Amino acid sequence: MSEPPAGPPSTKPPTEPAPGQSDTTRTNIWRRAAGVPAQAQTDLLAREEPLEIRLRGESLTVTMRTPGHDAELAAGLLVSEGIVRRREEILEIAYCRQGDSAAHDNILNVFLAPEVEFDFARLTRHVFASASCGLCGKASIEAIQQRFPPLEPPDKVVIEFATLLRLPQLLRAAQASFARTGGLHAAGVFTPQGELIAVREDIGRHNAVDKIVGLGFREGRLPFDQHVLLISGRASFEIMHKALAARFPIVAAVSAPSDLAVEFAEQNGQTLVGFLRSESANVYSRPERIA
Amino acid sequence: MSEPPAGPPSTKPPTEPAPGQSDTTRTNIWRRAAGVPAQAQTDLLAREEPLEIRLRGESLTVTMRTPGHDAELAAGLLVSEGIVRRREEILEIAYCRQGDSAAHDNILNVFLAPEVEFDFARLTRHVFASASCGLCGKASIEAIQQRFPPLEPPDKVVIEFATLLRLPQLLRAAQASFARTGGLHAAGVFTPQGELIAVREDIGRHNAVDKIVGLGFREGRLPFDQHVLLISGRASFEIMHKALAARFPIVAAVSAPSDLAVEFAEQNGQTLVGFLRSESANVYSRPERIA
Repeated sequence: MSEPPAGPPSTKPPTEPAPGQSDTTRTNIWRRAAGVPAQAQTDLLAREEPLEIRLRGESLTVTMRTPGHDAELAAGLLVSEGIVRRREEILEIAYCRQGDSAAHDNILNVFLAPEVEFDFARLTRHVFASASCGLCGKASIEAIQQRFPPLEPPDKVVIEFATLLRLPQLLRAAQASFARTGGLHAAGVFTPQGELIAVREDIGRHNAVDKIVGLGFREGRLPFDQHVLLISGRASFEIMHKALAARFPIVAAVSAPSDLAVEFAEQNGQTLVGFLRSESANVYSRPERIA
Repeated sequence: MSEPPAGPPSTKPPTEPAPGQSDTTRTNIWRRAAGVPAQAQTDLLAREEPLEIRLRGESLTVTMRTPGHDAELAAGLLVSEGIVRRREEILEIAYCRQGDSAAHDNILNVFLAPEVEFDFARLTRHVFASASCGLCGKASIEAIQQRFPPLEPPDKVVIEFATLLRLPQLLRAAQASFARTGGLHAAGVFTPQGELIAVREDIGRHNAVDKIVGLGFREGRLPFDQHVLLISGRASFEIMHKALAARFPIVAAVSAPSDLAVEFAEQNGQTLVGFLRSESANVYSRPERIA
């Protein structure tokens, strides 16, 4: 975090996670419990740092995120915003560098193929605020639907209810940092047979999903149209929008969905499950994908 | 949600909550539990709608929020961004109207006093992304610190530990909608004696805090420099930044803080409490304000 030395900018490819970066930090705390004197302890915290994403040299957005899998986060955002669809449309993703400083691991340059066109003004104006027109929920949903066509059930994707109930436990077991900090959201991709394909953690709920979408994009696994997306928290409109961009037919959340998330799921043929616990769940739309 | 009729725009003052708007919606669900057939039920959902905030006729941001207390949300955002400091700097806050349509209850015009100056380009570029410069956490913190000076302990604000432990239960009791939907975050203002002054709920964690800050601004109660801010979820950098804007000396969170939240609290003289439960808590900074 020292002052960056002067010098010509250069780039380096981001590794996953970024070098020298962990997703936790150790700190000193005072532990207080009723009837006991305060105790000095150490505790692990989830890391939070701003990430600036630049497109063609211009600043697109700054998001607060947990460092690590930054290239996936950036790619996932661009997929969700409809800017890129094919893997080859992103030529390279690289941290901005000046000399030997590590300070610029919080600026990521995305190099797009020359043929990729986008409206920079529209993007920076609403900066990923769901690309909503600001009129009303319905208009927002319509705007997104124009970008990504609805799924078309009936498809062949079905998950056994008993398998679904096991997913939160599998996600939690894979969520190494949460267990230590209690401060990270997780998103996981599963097969309908309950096999965990990947998990990503972030202090931001949306970021965790973006990292999953970006992973699929960068590894050539999109569309995730035979998979289940599980998130550790609540299901909002933006989560459902990102899930649609990646073509997930089933989205399951450990906590509550919003009304707009349910409306969006209904209109786009997505199965939405909420309050997924080890014994029970609520199904808000398209229950036919749960056997 | 029908198409807005053509006609000249007019304005009306926002009531709290907006007319015809509730913060919950009823929906049909399929309740699934292990070993039991699916049951059709109805369930309450937290509402989520986009809100566009306009300053001097220009679109500043679109945020996904739970309708209600929209004027507080807008005012709180402007206070946190350092655009307004004194009550009289906002002349009026009114929904945009066209004819008799209710569709524009999702667009809010903020009328600023003529002398209020701000850099619209800077605001829309980073759209409330903590106004961070994108370089690193330290630079972000410095940018915010230039806007709001640190608190200067020792001050006289002290809360008894036993009182602190009671706050989450008081917040939850006042959180009417959460109990019904499980989908809303809450922020509450308390006196150090444990008296609840106000609670606000929103699907967005930051929005709930903005509504509290905006309430203080609009009712002439700022600074909240003799008060405790309690949030139902995690403490991030942006929560601490908003708390500093309102001058809260004590911020307590039911869940985990991030490393940047702790660093920010230390540098700005804020007492930060995390994992606040009925029997225990972690204190991350300035423990002297907890007796």
